[in-house]
Amino acid sequence: MSQLKNDLFLRACKRQNVERTPIWIMRQAGRYLPEYRAVRAKADFLTMCKTPELAAEVTIQPVDIIGVDAAILFSDILVIPEAMGMHLEMNEGKGPVFPNPIRTVDDAKLLKNIDPTKELKYVLDAVSLTKKNLDNRVPLIGFSGSPWTLLTYMVEGKGSKNFAEVKKLIYNNPELAHAILDKLSNTIADYLSAKIEAGCNAVQIFDTWGGILSQNDFEEFSLRYVEKIISQIKRKDEPVIFFAKGVHFGLEKMANCGANVLGLDWTMNLNEVRKVVEDKVALQGNLDPTVLYAKKDYIKKAVNNVLKSFGRGNGHIFNLGHGVLPDIDPENVKALVKYVEEESKKYHE
Amino acid sequence: MSQLKNDLFLRACKRQNVERTPIWIMRQAGRYLPEYRAVRAKADFLTMCKTPELAAEVTIQPVDIIGVDAAILFSDILVIPEAMGMHLEMNEGKGPVFPNPIRTVDDAKLLKNIDPTKELKYVLDAVSLTKKNLDNRVPLIGFSGSPWTLLTYMVEGKGSKNFAEVKKLIYNNPELAHAILDKLSNTIADYLSAKIEAGCNAVQIFDTWGGILSQNDFEEFSLRYVEKIISQIKRKDEPVIFFAKGVHFGLEKMANCGANVLGLDWTMNLNEVRKVVEDKVALQGNLDPTVLYAKKDYIKKAVNNVLKSFGRGNGHIFNLGHGVLPDIDPENVKALVKYVEEESKKYHE
Repeated sequence: MSQLKNDLFLRACKRQNVERTPIWIMRQAGRYLPEYRAVRAKADFLTMCKTPELAAEVTIQPVDIIGVDAAILFSDILVIPEAMGMHLEMNEGKGPVFPNPIRTVDDAKLLKNIDPTKELKYVLDAVSLTKKNLDNRVPLIGFSGSPWTLLTYMVEGKGSKNFAEVKKLIYNNPELAHAILDKLSNTIADYLSAKIEAGCNAVQIFDTWGGILSQNDFEEFSLRYVEKIISQIKRKDEPVIFFAKGVHFGLEKMANCGANVLGLDWTMNLNEVRKVVEDKVALQGNLDPTVLYAKKDYIKKAVNNVLKSFGRGNGHIFNLGHGVLPDIDPENVKALVKYVEEESKKYHE
Repeated sequence: MSQLKNDLFLRACKRQNVERTPIWIMRQAGRYLPEYRAVRAKADFLTMCKTPELAAEVTIQPVDIIGVDAAILFSDILVIPEAMGMHLEMNEGKGPVFPNPIRTVDDAKLLKNIDPTKELKYVLDAVSLTKKNLDNRVPLIGFSGSPWTLLTYMVEGKGSKNFAEVKKLIYNNPELAHAILDKLSNTIADYLSAKIEAGCNAVQIFDTWGGILSQNDFEEFSLRYVEKIISQIKRKDEPVIFFAKGVHFGLEKMANCGANVLGLDWTMNLNEVRKVVEDKVALQGNLDPTVLYAKKDYIKKAVNNVLKSFGRGNGHIFNLGHGVLPDIDPENVKALVKYVEEESKKYHE
């Protein structure tokens, strides 16, 4: 870490002193960048994930082009179920599809036990190559979906409005749900440990679908497995970020789950959350991604609102409240980064 | 009101004593009922809305079949923009579409000023007929979308994932957004006043899309207009229910918006909300609609969890946290009503 030329992000994760608030952007290696689309034109999405040279190239693009303070490895949360044997179809625009979703005990038996250092070696190779090419300019983040979010995709099989199938599973066969969640947790812990071993400076766990659950169900089917994973990850001082989109409750429990940082969506008030979680965790977020459709002066005002909401002191990593949208103008993303750099200094004097 | 044979719902709205917790179900007059589908087979959705005999028939079905404690007039929130001149297409399964959405000042100029007692007379006729046919068995609820939710549909024109168009409008042309919201507010206040005049015993304002906004934007673009409407509705003691789906913040402000009841989705904790809002409002909700996919003993347990979460005392109306889903077994809905009737008595002894 001491070799990193810019370690603002890692210091903020640990609530250490920083001169300004660091920023990275969820889905920063993505379709809004013409340079990304140029690579994507040559290879399909999964091929990009599985080709370390391509994954490294698009991972580093936003560092070069946008000027973010951290890179996040280009990959997808569904590489784990795919490695466990589920056939995955990635249809641009339509979202990922598992044509054979997991619904029964027999379906679940088909899920292979995997060793991420073997079946997901391509991800670790992409980490190593990205680290080399990044040349210590900024830290590299690795990520995984949470067990609950992976289960949701594996059971629904495709996009869903009401998540009927995964809800039926947890209500009518909670034992099977817990068995799969437990298996996923062990795999994810191994996977994130291997990513850190390969060079990642931090890891983020995405719980995209935590917010579809009631408060009790979230604790039982999502949070307890995230806790388990974090306790199992082999790491030195690499921070863990937990981002549970749409989960506005249980903040005190989330602050005690072992994560160093909680990611928050744009419906949360950083100031209020900070009062609840106190000094237990840093906070990451939380500008509404659609603000990047606005004119520059509005973006600047909105950046200031987020910075002001967190207030003075350490432990804030600027980000959007969800991924950057594919039709956003890259100039607006550059402006966002510049505004955060400029406007945040006064909160750290 | 004194003539009503069952006024549990109205008493609960006013936090008066009840022997048991009343229940009604959002979208209770809907596709999960074979009797509804039989009517729907003879007429398209908008024709049903515009034909008082058909609207009254399906409105009363869940009172007869399911045994709920209130009827809610079968209609749609989009009849207002349609009456204002927007062409509306209702495609079963695909959701409603406005082929000519409102995006510019010139688009907005095409919106007619309407008098709901004229352009929406068919709704008021449906209220009168339903009241007559209900024969005072249970109260009748009328409803409207909130200005923000109507604006969202009118600007997006069709289903949306990120609500880019309406967000662009509020960021880049807030004056136009406010002008349309103001116009909608006056129309909605007139509309709900007319529904009460025609016989509705209570009204509910649905803010389906309030939850896509940040906290500041929700106050500026949604809540202030709901307050304005409630202050303008002509009513004697007919309660107003405000249901803002996905809005987990600003509860104190919502409790002071003039509504008698706040509707809550299933991610909220009734007990915690009750502590915040104290005795200012009654609470309505909030069982996860997907629980009706579960086996009966699980439904019973989940009913008890909701009742227990609210706890002893008055001011709770049982409901789902969102509409009943179209593929739910009506037997499970009947069981839900029975469990609420039986299990809630002990909270009112």
